[in-house]
Amino acid sequence: MTYTLILLRHGQSEWNEKNLFTGWVDVALTPKGREEAARSGRLLAEAGLLPDIVYTSRQKRAIITANLALEAADRSWIDVKRSWRLNERHYGALQGKDKAQTLAEFGEEQFMEWRRSYDTPPPPLEDSSEYSQADDPRYADLGEDLPRTECLKDVLERFLPYWESDITVDIRAGRTVLLAAHGNSLRSLVKHLDGISDKDIAALNIPTGIPLVYELDEELTPVKAGGTYLDPEAAAASITAVANQGKH
Amino acid sequence: MTYTLILLRHGQSEWNEKNLFTGWVDVALTPKGREEAARSGRLLAEAGLLPDIVYTSRQKRAIITANLALEAADRSWIDVKRSWRLNERHYGALQGKDKAQTLAEFGEEQFMEWRRSYDTPPPPLEDSSEYSQADDPRYADLGEDLPRTECLKDVLERFLPYWESDITVDIRAGRTVLLAAHGNSLRSLVKHLDGISDKDIAALNIPTGIPLVYELDEELTPVKAGGTYLDPEAAAASITAVANQGKH
Repeated sequence: MTYTLILLRHGQSEWNEKNLFTGWVDVALTPKGREEAARSGRLLAEAGLLPDIVYTSRQKRAIITANLALEAADRSWIDVKRSWRLNERHYGALQGKDKAQTLAEFGEEQFMEWRRSYDTPPPPLEDSSEYSQADDPRYADLGEDLPRTECLKDVLERFLPYWESDITVDIRAGRTVLLAAHGNSLRSLVKHLDGISDKDIAALNIPTGIPLVYELDEELTPVKAGGTYLDPEAAAASITAVANQGKH
Repeated sequence: MTYTLILLRHGQSEWNEKNLFTGWVDVALTPKGREEAARSGRLLAEAGLLPDIVYTSRQKRAIITANLALEAADRSWIDVKRSWRLNERHYGALQGKDKAQTLAEFGEEQFMEWRRSYDTPPPPLEDSSEYSQADDPRYADLGEDLPRTECLKDVLERFLPYWESDITVDIRAGRTVLLAAHGNSLRSLVKHLDGISDKDIAALNIPTGIPLVYELDEELTPVKAGGTYLDPEAAAASITAVANQGKH
């Protein structure tokens, strides 16, 4: 008896395309991102992987990705749960900044530390910034929990309680769970599932719009470390492209 | 202090367009229906009516209507609850039949009794029919509750327990609730809210894709009987067209 968990990073967003740090800013998918999302649903249906419940962040690029994928898989009717705990990493004062410009301004060492260090967050974002979520009604009930910046460790620490309280309950009930989320919230989960070290997680990238399927045993340990992409070739190409972000 | 409830009947479906009895058959929206859905979201946003939670049936024409409306209103992030208790009336053995042909075959009296009588259901649908939901996994947990045919009274009786147990709890908590559902599940609610008689409900039609807004007092009684359509002219035109269905 194994359980099935499907991770899906949202398709290309408007700020992925513009090469800006996005974080908690609620940007839309591009037409290409919408097509990626629908294709991911077709991949799920072709593989016979039919989710029984979908979890999403509170951000539209993940939510619309889930909507389009489920519509393409003819599975729109399943239950839905949303939580800010699946949101992308809050990128602090970098939100809204151009990645290439930030690289040029601060140098590669600082740039890579902000992007990939496990426990060093960027400087916090001021509540007065146009890119702040301090007054966003969807986060009004977070109170002191509302982040102003996060490192990956922070993401893991706010994601894991929800993983334990809600998501694993559905998994253990035998439901095929789809998580539609973001590069860093999914990296934090993969780090947890595969037991990746604080150092090695820096090199792990998750491509947009390609379902990553984990079979989990009764301890919720992956049967195959790293899981399985439904389109391995496209995943490899996309991972290379993500790794080069900011370098052009 | 009043509460706000928004009713939204799904946009045009493929079988609305073909003039077939649909019921529990899970047909998709037409391109026109998708545009109606998006427009309903724009109407909500323009009126400043921002839902805090959306309820849908388990049928894609209502679910996709909700998805498109909320995306157009930039409100995709709200909580979602789905229940078969918001489904369209089960049309029994009429499901999949042409309305005009049924009218010609059985005569206007029988036709109108099936369509509009409060307590006379059509003959039941056989489980072996291609239009049956007896083997549909989304209804697997219904057991004996799975309908094979329904009159409007049956719809009201399976909708009201969910209205009391879930929807009214959100309304009384002060949340603006959006119900994305179907002609007859919404008629049953309107009958309940406005205290319409078993006889008079026959003449009430709800147009597709136009938000119907109810302000409710502390007893959940409508402040204005019948509520308010956000686009009254389009609603009136659509109601006339629905009333003439099967007559051409």
